[in-house]
Amino acid sequence: MPELRRQNEGEEWVIVSPDRSTRPLEFPRVQREASVSSDTCPFCAGNEGMTPPELYRDPSEQTESWRVRVIPNKFPALNVDPRLDPIEFPASHYARLAGSGSHEVIVESPDHGSTFESMSEDQAVRVIAAYVARVRHHLADPRFPYVQLFKNHGGAAGASLRHPHSQIIALPFVPDRIQRMVDAEDAHFARNESCQLCEIIENESRLGLRVVHHAEGFLVWAPFDSRFPYELTVAPCEHLPDFSDIEQKHQLGLARALGEAIRRLVCTLGDVPYNFFLFTSPRRTAPPETSHPGVHWRLSIVPRIGTLAGFEFATGVHINPVSPVAAAKRLRDNDTGKATPNASTGGTHDPLQ
Amino acid sequence: MPELRRQNEGEEWVIVSPDRSTRPLEFPRVQREASVSSDTCPFCAGNEGMTPPELYRDPSEQTESWRVRVIPNKFPALNVDPRLDPIEFPASHYARLAGSGSHEVIVESPDHGSTFESMSEDQAVRVIAAYVARVRHHLADPRFPYVQLFKNHGGAAGASLRHPHSQIIALPFVPDRIQRMVDAEDAHFARNESCQLCEIIENESRLGLRVVHHAEGFLVWAPFDSRFPYELTVAPCEHLPDFSDIEQKHQLGLARALGEAIRRLVCTLGDVPYNFFLFTSPRRTAPPETSHPGVHWRLSIVPRIGTLAGFEFATGVHINPVSPVAAAKRLRDNDTGKATPNASTGGTHDPLQ
Repeated sequence: MPELRRQNEGEEWVIVSPDRSTRPLEFPRVQREASVSSDTCPFCAGNEGMTPPELYRDPSEQTESWRVRVIPNKFPALNVDPRLDPIEFPASHYARLAGSGSHEVIVESPDHGSTFESMSEDQAVRVIAAYVARVRHHLADPRFPYVQLFKNHGGAAGASLRHPHSQIIALPFVPDRIQRMVDAEDAHFARNESCQLCEIIENESRLGLRVVHHAEGFLVWAPFDSRFPYELTVAPCEHLPDFSDIEQKHQLGLARALGEAIRRLVCTLGDVPYNFFLFTSPRRTAPPETSHPGVHWRLSIVPRIGTLAGFEFATGVHINPVSPVAAAKRLRDNDTGKATPNASTGGTHDPLQ
Repeated sequence: MPELRRQNEGEEWVIVSPDRSTRPLEFPRVQREASVSSDTCPFCAGNEGMTPPELYRDPSEQTESWRVRVIPNKFPALNVDPRLDPIEFPASHYARLAGSGSHEVIVESPDHGSTFESMSEDQAVRVIAAYVARVRHHLADPRFPYVQLFKNHGGAAGASLRHPHSQIIALPFVPDRIQRMVDAEDAHFARNESCQLCEIIENESRLGLRVVHHAEGFLVWAPFDSRFPYELTVAPCEHLPDFSDIEQKHQLGLARALGEAIRRLVCTLGDVPYNFFLFTSPRRTAPPETSHPGVHWRLSIVPRIGTLAGFEFATGVHINPVSPVAAAKRLRDNDTGKATPNASTGGTHDPLQ
C-alpha cells in the first residue's frame, strides 16, 4: 500500500510505494525503455484490452479508433482508495498519510512511433485538450488540492515505454516546493498589485536574449535562474493562474509553442531524453484566501543531459554549466524551418548571461 | 565567472557556472567515467604536477609518497575571488550573488584502483581525518556559513574520474534545504529539550527493523522517510551538532560504519554507483542564537538505482518503490563476513515498513 511520509517539520513528503517495484522495469542500472513492438505495446491501437478501462477518449471522426486516450496507470504511485493501518511509533517523529491519489496515463497518439514534436498540429491540440480536461477533473475533486501533469520522454528521463504518453498524479496535499512558489507569487501580487511572471515575461520579451520563441500569446525562454542546462519555460503572455482555464482558442498556440520548444531542443541536442512538467495554481476554493491571484501557470522543459550528484541531493542547489543566454542563442540558431516572430537574435552584449 | 541566482522569494539558489562546461566530460548522454590509466590520472601518485598546488597532505611514514591529498578542483563550481559586474535588469525579480566559494577534491588514496569500502581501516581513518580538517578549516572562514562534503562514485553518480575521491564545496550562503532542516531540528530541541535525531536513533535501535549496522557509537539505518531506495543514514549515537568536532577516537568507528554500509550496498546491489553527503551544523557564531543545539550531524548514502523523472523535478516529492524495512533486511542478510552487533534480524512484524 502506498504511503506518504515525512519527518515532522521536515522538508518534503516522500511517497513510499512498494507495489511499484513490480513494474516490468525494476531498476536497470541505466534505465532503458522496454523494447516493445506495436503488437505487445499496451498503448497501441488494437491493444486497448491490455489496459485498465479508459477514463477519457478523444474519438476519431474517420476511423473506429481513437486519437487520445487517458487510462489509469497500471503501477500507480498512489491509489484512490488506500488502507492505512493505525500505528504508534514513530508518530512523534514522523508524519504519515495514506497514499491516496490518482495516477493516470495520457496516451498521446494511437501511433507507437509518434512523438509530441513530430505529430500533426491537430493531434497536439487534442493532447492539450486532454491535459486540460483531466487537470480540471481532478482539481474539482475536494480530495486533491494539487494535480501534477508531467511527461517523461526516453529511458534516461524515466519513461518505461516508448509509445508517446504523459502522466497526471492527483495529490492529497500541496507539495512544499509548489506551496513555496505559490506563496512567493501571491506575496508579490499582494505587494505590487501585479504578477511577477507577467513582469518577467515583459522584460524577457523586450530584452530578447533569453527568448527562443514568441508567438500567438506564448513565450518560450531560458529562465535567468535555470536549474538545468537548456531548461526552457513555456508560458502564456496573458496572466492566468489555473492551467485548466486556458481557452480553447489558445490551445493551438500552446501546442505550437511546446512543439517548437521540443523541436529546437531535439535539433540542437539530438534525440535527447527530456521531461516537461506543469506548474499551476492549487485548487482554488473561496476567494480571496485561496484564489492564488499571483500564480501564473507555466510548463518547464528539462532535457536530461547532465547528472545530478551528491551536491544537488544534499543541498537542493543545482550547478548549471550552461548560461541561459548561451542556451537560448543555440536554440534560436537551430531553426527548424518555421518562423519565430519576435525572437531577438541576441546581438547586444548583456553582462547578465 | 560563476554566479549565484534565484528568483526573488524563490525556492532555491542556482549556481550558474559556465566555465565548468569546459570539463573533459562535457555532457555524455549517459555519463561515463573517463577511462584514465594511472599514467595519465591526475590523482595518482607521481602525477602531482598535473594538479593545482595541494591544500592538505597526510604524509606516509614508509614512503616518500602521501596517503591522502586535498587539492583545488580544477573546474570549480565556485571561485574564491569572483568578479561580478553590476547590473540593473532583472534585479527587481531575481537575486544575484557573486559565485564566491571554494571547491576542493579529497584524493582518498594514491592507489587508482582503490575504493572507500575496500581500503584498509588505517587508510579510511586518514580520509575521515582529512574530511574533518577541511570542514573545520572552511567553517572557521567567516565568508562561508556552510560547507558541503560529498562523494560521487561511478559515472552515473556524477563522477568524472574513477580514482577514489570526494569533494568539498564551501558556500557563501546556507542552502534553503539545509536551513529548513536546521530550523526544524532547532525548534524541536527548543520545545522538547532533546534532539529529534537522538530520539529517532533510540527508537530505531530498539525496534531494529530498519537497522543495518550498530557498533562503536554509530548507527547505520534505512530512514523511515527514505527518498531513495536503499538510502542509508550513518550517524553518531551521541548528540553532536558539528561534524568537525568529532573526536579522534571516534574517527575509527565512523570509518568502519561508513565502510560497512557501502560494502553491504555493493554486496546487495552489485558495483552500484552511489553518492554520500554530509549534513552538519552551519557555522556557529555566538551562542545561543546561532549555536544550532538541535542539529545532529549525519551522512546519507544514496545508491543510484532509479531515475528521477518529471514528477520529482516538478514537486520535489520522491517516489520510493522499496520500503526501508525491506531494504534494511536485504542489506543485513548480505553479510560481508564482519560482525554486526545489535542489528536485529527483523523477525517481528511491523506494519510500518
